[in-house]
Amino acid sequence: MRSDGRANDQMRPIRITTDFICHANGSVLMECGRTKVICTATMEDRVPPFLKGTGKGWITGEYAMIPASTQVRKVRESSRGKVEGRTQEIQRLIGRSLRSVVNLDGMGERTIWIDCDVIQADGGTRTASITGSFVALVYCIQRMLQQGILKKSPIHSHVAAVSVGIHDGNTILDLCYDEDSHAKVDMNIVMTDKGEFVEVQGTGEESPFSREDLLQLLKLGQAGIQRMILAQKEAMGALCDLVGDPA
Amino acid sequence: MRSDGRANDQMRPIRITTDFICHANGSVLMECGRTKVICTATMEDRVPPFLKGTGKGWITGEYAMIPASTQVRKVRESSRGKVEGRTQEIQRLIGRSLRSVVNLDGMGERTIWIDCDVIQADGGTRTASITGSFVALVYCIQRMLQQGILKKSPIHSHVAAVSVGIHDGNTILDLCYDEDSHAKVDMNIVMTDKGEFVEVQGTGEESPFSREDLLQLLKLGQAGIQRMILAQKEAMGALCDLVGDPA
Amino acid sequence: MRSDGRANDQMRPIRITTDFICHANGSVLMECGRTKVICTATMEDRVPPFLKGTGKGWITGEYAMIPASTQVRKVRESSRGKVEGRTQEIQRLIGRSLRSVVNLDGMGERTIWIDCDVIQADGGTRTASITGSFVALVYCIQRMLQQGILKKSPIHSHVAAVSVGIHDGNTILDLCYDEDSHAKVDMNIVMTDKGEFVEVQGTGEESPFSREDLLQLLKLGQAGIQRMILAQKEAMGALCDLVGDPA
Amino acid sequence: MRSDGRANDQMRPIRITTDFICHANGSVLMECGRTKVICTATMEDRVPPFLKGTGKGWITGEYAMIPASTQVRKVRESSRGKVEGRTQEIQRLIGRSLRSVVNLDGMGERTIWIDCDVIQADGGTRTASITGSFVALVYCIQRMLQQGILKKSPIHSHVAAVSVGIHDGNTILDLCYDEDSHAKVDMNIVMTDKGEFVEVQGTGEESPFSREDLLQLLKLGQAGIQRMILAQKEAMGALCDLVGDPA
Amino acid sequence: MRSDGRANDQMRPIRITTDFICHANGSVLMECGRTKVICTATMEDRVPPFLKGTGKGWITGEYAMIPASTQVRKVRESSRGKVEGRTQEIQRLIGRSLRSVVNLDGMGERTIWIDCDVIQADGGTRTASITGSFVALVYCIQRMLQQGILKKSPIHSHVAAVSVGIHDGNTILDLCYDEDSHAKVDMNIVMTDKGEFVEVQGTGEESPFSREDLLQLLKLGQAGIQRMILAQKEAMGALCDLVGDPA
Amino acid sequence: MRSDGRANDQMRPIRITTDFICHANGSVLMECGRTKVICTATMEDRVPPFLKGTGKGWITGEYAMIPASTQVRKVRESSRGKVEGRTQEIQRLIGRSLRSVVNLDGMGERTIWIDCDVIQADGGTRTASITGSFVALVYCIQRMLQQGILKKSPIHSHVAAVSVGIHDGNTILDLCYDEDSHAKVDMNIVMTDKGEFVEVQGTGEESPFSREDLLQLLKLGQAGIQRMILAQKEAMGALCDLVGDPA
Repeated sequence: MRSDGRANDQMRPIRITTDFICHANGSVLMECGRTKVICTATMEDRVPPFLKGTGKGWITGEYAMIPASTQVRKVRESSRGKVEGRTQEIQRLIGRSLRSVVNLDGMGERTIWIDCDVIQADGGTRTASITGSFVALVYCIQRMLQQGILKKSPIHSHVAAVSVGIHDGNTILDLCYDEDSHAKVDMNIVMTDKGEFVEVQGTGEESPFSREDLLQLLKLGQAGIQRMILAQKEAMGALCDLVGDPA
Repeated sequence: MRSDGRANDQMRPIRITTDFICHANGSVLMECGRTKVICTATMEDRVPPFLKGTGKGWITGEYAMIPASTQVRKVRESSRGKVEGRTQEIQRLIGRSLRSVVNLDGMGERTIWIDCDVIQADGGTRTASITGSFVALVYCIQRMLQQGILKKSPIHSHVAAVSVGIHDGNTILDLCYDEDSHAKVDMNIVMTDKGEFVEVQGTGEESPFSREDLLQLLKLGQAGIQRMILAQKEAMGALCDLVGDPA
Repeated sequence: MRSDGRANDQMRPIRITTDFICHANGSVLMECGRTKVICTATMEDRVPPFLKGTGKGWITGEYAMIPASTQVRKVRESSRGKVEGRTQEIQRLIGRSLRSVVNLDGMGERTIWIDCDVIQADGGTRTASITGSFVALVYCIQRMLQQGILKKSPIHSHVAAVSVGIHDGNTILDLCYDEDSHAKVDMNIVMTDKGEFVEVQGTGEESPFSREDLLQLLKLGQAGIQRMILAQKEAMGALCDLVGDPA
Repeated sequence: MRSDGRANDQMRPIRITTDFICHANGSVLMECGRTKVICTATMEDRVPPFLKGTGKGWITGEYAMIPASTQVRKVRESSRGKVEGRTQEIQRLIGRSLRSVVNLDGMGERTIWIDCDVIQADGGTRTASITGSFVALVYCIQRMLQQGILKKSPIHSHVAAVSVGIHDGNTILDLCYDEDSHAKVDMNIVMTDKGEFVEVQGTGEESPFSREDLLQLLKLGQAGIQRMILAQKEAMGALCDLVGDPA
Repeated sequence: MRSDGRANDQMRPIRITTDFICHANGSVLMECGRTKVICTATMEDRVPPFLKGTGKGWITGEYAMIPASTQVRKVRESSRGKVEGRTQEIQRLIGRSLRSVVNLDGMGERTIWIDCDVIQADGGTRTASITGSFVALVYCIQRMLQQGILKKSPIHSHVAAVSVGIHDGNTILDLCYDEDSHAKVDMNIVMTDKGEFVEVQGTGEESPFSREDLLQLLKLGQAGIQRMILAQKEAMGALCDLVGDPA
Repeated sequence: MRSDGRANDQMRPIRITTDFICHANGSVLMECGRTKVICTATMEDRVPPFLKGTGKGWITGEYAMIPASTQVRKVRESSRGKVEGRTQEIQRLIGRSLRSVVNLDGMGERTIWIDCDVIQADGGTRTASITGSFVALVYCIQRMLQQGILKKSPIHSHVAAVSVGIHDGNTILDLCYDEDSHAKVDMNIVMTDKGEFVEVQGTGEESPFSREDLLQLLKLGQAGIQRMILAQKEAMGALCDLVGDPA
């Protein structure tokens, strides 16, 4: 049994609160157990230089943790004057994951900023960020449709993420911080609701893993993704129609 | 009547939720109308260089806004690589305000970090930060007493803050963003529960103000401070005993 | 009696040397006792982005200290790679103070840069900067009038600043460094020649102050401001006509 | 057939030149087709703060590209004043990969710096960096053994990396730049000579991939890794004895 | 006799390998004894702001050392977040030296970036950089002529550089690192093939030098420059025709 | 005749005002024509890391220009967040020049900071900085002798600097800004009172120069240095005894 009493294939309680911040075009508070992330989506009427004149849109991710979100107070990146490698890695992952389910040609020359601000961290902040941001993105698209900026939703699939790992010889789903920091193998999986992979990132720094381990991790992750997408759908209600074929 | 229907001397609803972030020694969600700030207090077992060897403690403040907290998305200071002048001014004000009601000699060589992270902004974020941080600080001190780090609370007074201003010819209390951005005179007042001033910062950039204006603003502010301190006391309950003479 | 023998309401000798730097449009050496600040005003033919197309002008302040200006050598901000919070606070204050007496609509889309470089510091550098910069600004406006860039002076009032404080139980005017670093209450006052307040910034970090203290400080400050404005007028001579109604 | 005439499962020519830089403890020029990376290993007699007093060693990776290494001149990160997210991601990957095959307890409190400087880039610079750095690391360990700093080699396995991807509907091995920039799916695989995975990083940003795709990519990658390890062994000659059980 | 057996007026072996990096317009590997520098020239279709609209071109130099190039590993300037004074001095020197032999009016509004990346350092890296960059520049110009961007080569002279110094009482040519770090006087000379000086930079920090010393140093340097220019010509072959009057 | 009516070998009026800043250990206002530099010397009781434990002292130079010192307002390096290459070059030159005349072994483990702050620039700011700083340094040493920190002055020679150049075909001494910006050849010479060279830095970017030009420039410079040293001696009065053998 795991430290918090869960079965190996059991996720922590998921709670997605929509419309959490009044100014953002889309915003949710994403909670996975004690992990809490504010995910927002904000539209801006221009694109990065490399897309100017192409008619295509862009989605970019930013990620930060407030100092009190971690067990030991985390020094602000603005005070240190530089953004950590870990932060940049997560930001790039968030951007890639959301872009993978959006038809960027259908956005016009606009950028959607995805901001993930972790206010309480207990493992899985990057996967919570991706899963929550997808919901914020759908709300942002809805706003753009309502305002007549878009005619048609450019989102073709759900995307969500979970972590899996090998800890104490067990293959487990949705690691909390304590498990994460002691796991021999740590993997983040990003998938669509079509059962396809967007990202697979597995690391066995302290102990390499076999092909069989990998297959088991992928299977467990796939189950977790389905649970995440279910939670997205519950939170989105009628907005589910904005994803892929509403048929 | 004001844009949100309030009387000139009426404050917005105040809500102080304690124990908001599990890892911090003290933490509150401070809400004044639509303004929401996470205020935390975290103890660290060392002091800045200039206090080493003095036996005295230190309290320092940090302040930031998440990008989605404002009407137009705010670029992260970590991305820009520098901390704005406004942010630094507010950070210094928060630190001074809290230090003014704590006997630093009674803290030992320890630093308490006050972090104010604005998640939704609608005017008055600096005054909400100060008022909320005081409550977080008291919880932090309680933890230190429980752990035997301190024998006696070093807090001798309540401290709270409000904004006042002159807008459309009226002297008004607790300005929301819309009022604040059009006010001719803008003043922040920090006071103790003893009715004494810790900070008075009044600016009439667009229109200088008279001595009579100033006196009226101070009077209105004083009433607001009392209301703020009442809210602190309600949120703190029995912890009020940790402030000044419990007699 | 004070350390340098002055009465509580007595200011240090003021000396304002005009045309101090040959390249600037307006420049003065401002001396208050041992405090010496080079204040310059330089016109630039463009405005910050937020004013483009508005027809309005802008005045912005910068402040720095040379390393040898302080008792202990001050590390250059360029070497440290960041501008201190204190510097930014002072820069913002200088900009606000000068803008308060200028009709920005009457400047056209131009920026006037106010640079205050402290070459010797003995307390009151920010108030000396404001008072001296006003004179440099007037000279800069005169140049613009001479060159036909402006038709009419946009300056409607004098602005000057002084510090007051409570030290050793006494309410004193124009604190030198030694007094400033031991004062219980420290207040900077910026006023116009019409007797109105532009800024009031009082801090009682080490000891809060009462309403009576505040009133006394304001009164003392008002007297100091009058003395400062007198010195400005003496230095400006005929240029006084460029301020407000020459009638 | 691929643009350079290779079969889908064919790698580019690999060349590993040892002792390339005279000052480093270990250094190689690693060439995979037109991709050329200088990989060096340098020992330093101290560890990062979090390892002080633990008796354990550390291996850290740095990666950079000279401006002329890419088709369009790349601005130096030192000129821009910040290290890109991509660079940081690669640096972290190099460090993790090499640490995975070294018994850090057997290094004593020492750091080995792995520097990978790309002098000509044509795809696969991160996998070439890992594969080449391993050889440089072994030479560095040999030097430490010769100098009596170590008694026994702490390296327990070979580690190498290759890229695989899906391009034009084909699953291909060892992508050159042109293939890489048009691939639908891009995966980097890091494995040991024991056939275990250290890292699996697959990205299907432009087109998610199925479980079957993933399995095929892994299989192809595994074959590429074996080829890479063979090249390492040829370059290392007798130094192969320093890896794992020489039996 | 010198530590490596050379006579006082003897240079180290020079080797210039052209076409070293495939992507650059011009590139060489410049070797002077153990000192190895990759020198590249890359054309960009724009000029710095101060030349816009003048029809003139620009040549700018950048210089860096890879961490393993020096005896003790050199921390990357990108990691430290700032470019050292020494680096900037060398960069400025490289730019000035190459501009001195090019008719900038004849380049059109284009910039040629000269990048000098030291991969192994043993003294004389700045002089090797200048000498090697000249060859890279000529190849870049050849490419521009071939592409029809230029009609006529704008290069009017060869330029090369050597170091001379006073060490152990002897005036010596082409100092290696060991000599350089113990020399009393250190001088870098940049000259054209017409026997004229472009730069003379002599430093006697540890021991001032006489007029006679100076004359001897200049004479020795002049001989070294001739040897350097000979090596350039051998490496350039038929491209020598692109420099000045081929008559 | 030159633009300001001087003969080719005529210097601008020199004025050295000692004791210019009250807090520095030594300070002068150095004026050469319209060029004005505040030069100060401040002692600090520690040395850079590379000198710890050697018993030797260090002298380091810093240089900056206030924004209004130049014809077009100069953006502060602190605002830009980086120190220009030109500034760093000058700082290094100042440090080397002063160290060349001081017996660092005789200073104990102390650093003397030389700060040169240009308040008005009209060419020759770096040579004025060196010449003025020498005087500030001597005053600083006197203070150290008076306080018993040193037993004996470690200064063995005067050091001063001048600029020379070729302009309009004439070899001229002590260039003002207008001449400097149009000169074909520009040279800075640093010499001791013993007639020896400390630095010779000549640049013919726009037009290389011959050996004869060089000899003429050196001769003219030597005469200028003598005039500079005379001015130093007049300013120093009895303090001349602190330099070299007073015999």
